[in-house]
Amino acid sequence: MCKEDADLKNEDLRFASRMACVSGSAIRELLKLTAKPGMISFAGGNPGSFALPNDDIAEIAHDLLKREGKRLLQYGPTEGYQPLVETLVDYLKEEFSAEAGPEEILPITGSAQGIDLICKVYINPGDTVLVESPTFLGNIQCMRIFEANIVPVPMDENGIILEELEMLIQRHHPKMLYTIPTFQNPTGITMSMERRKAIAALASKYRMLVAEDEPYRSLRYSGTPLPSIKSFDEEGWVVLLGSFSKVIAPGLRVGFMAGNASLIRKCTVCKQSSDVHTATLNQAIVDEYMRRGLLKPHVQEACRVYSLQMNAMLEKIDTIKEIVHHTVPKGGLFIFASIGEGLDVAPLFNLSVLRQVAFVPGEPFYPEGGHKNTLRLNFTNADVGTIHRGMSVLRSCFEETCRKPIAQVNTQWDPKG
Amino acid sequence: MCKEDADLKNEDLRFASRMACVSGSAIRELLKLTAKPGMISFAGGNPGSFALPNDDIAEIAHDLLKREGKRLLQYGPTEGYQPLVETLVDYLKEEFSAEAGPEEILPITGSAQGIDLICKVYINPGDTVLVESPTFLGNIQCMRIFEANIVPVPMDENGIILEELEMLIQRHHPKMLYTIPTFQNPTGITMSMERRKAIAALASKYRMLVAEDEPYRSLRYSGTPLPSIKSFDEEGWVVLLGSFSKVIAPGLRVGFMAGNASLIRKCTVCKQSSDVHTATLNQAIVDEYMRRGLLKPHVQEACRVYSLQMNAMLEKIDTIKEIVHHTVPKGGLFIFASIGEGLDVAPLFNLSVLRQVAFVPGEPFYPEGGHKNTLRLNFTNADVGTIHRGMSVLRSCFEETCRKPIAQVNTQWDPKG
Repeated sequence: MCKEDADLKNEDLRFASRMACVSGSAIRELLKLTAKPGMISFAGGNPGSFALPNDDIAEIAHDLLKREGKRLLQYGPTEGYQPLVETLVDYLKEEFSAEAGPEEILPITGSAQGIDLICKVYINPGDTVLVESPTFLGNIQCMRIFEANIVPVPMDENGIILEELEMLIQRHHPKMLYTIPTFQNPTGITMSMERRKAIAALASKYRMLVAEDEPYRSLRYSGTPLPSIKSFDEEGWVVLLGSFSKVIAPGLRVGFMAGNASLIRKCTVCKQSSDVHTATLNQAIVDEYMRRGLLKPHVQEACRVYSLQMNAMLEKIDTIKEIVHHTVPKGGLFIFASIGEGLDVAPLFNLSVLRQVAFVPGEPFYPEGGHKNTLRLNFTNADVGTIHRGMSVLRSCFEETCRKPIAQVNTQWDPKG
Repeated sequence: MCKEDADLKNEDLRFASRMACVSGSAIRELLKLTAKPGMISFAGGNPGSFALPNDDIAEIAHDLLKREGKRLLQYGPTEGYQPLVETLVDYLKEEFSAEAGPEEILPITGSAQGIDLICKVYINPGDTVLVESPTFLGNIQCMRIFEANIVPVPMDENGIILEELEMLIQRHHPKMLYTIPTFQNPTGITMSMERRKAIAALASKYRMLVAEDEPYRSLRYSGTPLPSIKSFDEEGWVVLLGSFSKVIAPGLRVGFMAGNASLIRKCTVCKQSSDVHTATLNQAIVDEYMRRGLLKPHVQEACRVYSLQMNAMLEKIDTIKEIVHHTVPKGGLFIFASIGEGLDVAPLFNLSVLRQVAFVPGEPFYPEGGHKNTLRLNFTNADVGTIHRGMSVLRSCFEETCRKPIAQVNTQWDPKG
């Protein structure tokens, strides 16, 4: 019986020292707030409801469980459901221009697990990890738990700036670079072909692992697909993280990692004691969804709708005078914007949430902090009408809370935010 | 392109030092071997195929995905699918005699994830964790990855020996005790009521966390259910780990942890970057299975069959003269046996695998090593006929490989193995 008054307090517990700098994701706390009914959310990274193929998955799950349920419900190998691994060999070739054999691929419980496993097997406390600034804060948190020394690398509109990267490599001797090269979170920026090649070469030159996180690459609304960094990797320094969260369904928690066989083997050993294996039913659903040829047309339709939504949001953004910079992505889920330097989006955020429109302040995405004048807007989770309504509310909130900046309106993204 | 000859070798990679003593689970490697067609496996911890309710789950999955698929396929809260959390409040009361509010419960991706999260939030390198000797080696491996100092505690036929435990607490000032009180893995031993109470009291007295792992408790074939250690916990030092792997289906990867709210909150923060949340579809399937009242009759039927299988195996064991000790469990999945002291089951294992019968040598379950004369036999994964056939093969292997020991045949379990 846990008696309320006898119950332990936080200070009675002797938590591990790695927890000292870990406070939970600001965004996930914020998302709970935005889950309230009536709230228009430009905050999360959720796929649109229309893009969650529940009828197809209902049928597939039923068929699979009837046909081979005994296998799918039993313990499976940590190495993953082998039909999915085989499917992934082809998927990597087609979608990422990357070659990997079955022993170089590991299905995981969402691509977030990939970073957790890589940190576990590769990062000692104090090891330096280079990350884009800004970057996905969920994975920054993971690296903090493993007590990595996180060093931000500046970007411009073509991704990581190579000269800065090489200088930082020489200064910090990093164990790893973490990058999201395509439709980056939170900026929407895509790294150029030349830089992808160069980063693969730098990885070999400096014997630095590159964790290439590619959850968004299939969601392209314009331009030509670029090969992954992994496709230029000749020695095995690049480990690619893929996810079905944005193209099938996040609730299934199925992703994969592909990299050097020795690294994958160590990650498999760690996965044994992390969650034994990724739920077999979920792996089989993803596999069957692809084998039935449903993925491509589904992604095509999602891209068609998402691009309308992105354009609707971009149009509305351009009517907001207080926004001095914003990105114009070619795909993905996010637009990154900033108001005048020295300003803070906090009052804007408070007012807009009060008026039932949510977004995410940009600061938590910067490992070095600061950049309080930035914000991330998601356009996949609201239809065009809702985007119109939400952006109108947002515009009035901008007008009421942000002083008009001196700088001229400029749609070029400024790396200094 | 990963060229075979250019590919990195193990020695090129600078793995984290925590990996130095981690080699992968001997059992999981062995289980791959035993998955070969024609093999009779007494090796794993798999539920019987009959006990995997694939038809019910096919229907439930289909219904859920049709009815609320958009919610189940979207991102969910790290805190878990709230209907399941509510169901677990009652389940904890009924099945574990334990009181816990929703904020003291966290659904997890199999109970293995619970140990991973607890180690992450609570164990610094070098911290002492006490464990039963022998114990479940998957969780020993997890503690090794977190560089815990693992100290074995001796057991007798009523579980952990209290005097030894208190002495070891005083000597090592452990952060945590890990215990499987009911139908323990690998021994099948159940801790007595008195010792459960005493361990809850020792936890408070010495401010020591107790991780109480209870995956098997519903599989009772005789005797009266005992309350969990958690039920005697007045301050919140005990964190209970539960699993649906043995009573519904391991392939779904759904378990839960219940403990002090501060601890659960920290584990939730770490879970954010481990796998964001447990697959919502899987949580909802387990919840619906229980809400439809299917769990109780299903467990009853599983217990009826498993107890026949256990008795068939016990009868056969008693005809093997080379076995000098074995446990007689009141439930669970395993019987633990030993041959004469000084002998090694390795030749027996090699011969029996050659003859298509697999079991697990006992040594890897001992954190301190040794005890090469012990073995674990699983009886849930083979029907009575298969058990008869397999045990006959095993008997001939025993006769051919083990010298007849001097000690008298004795069905009492000897803690020294």
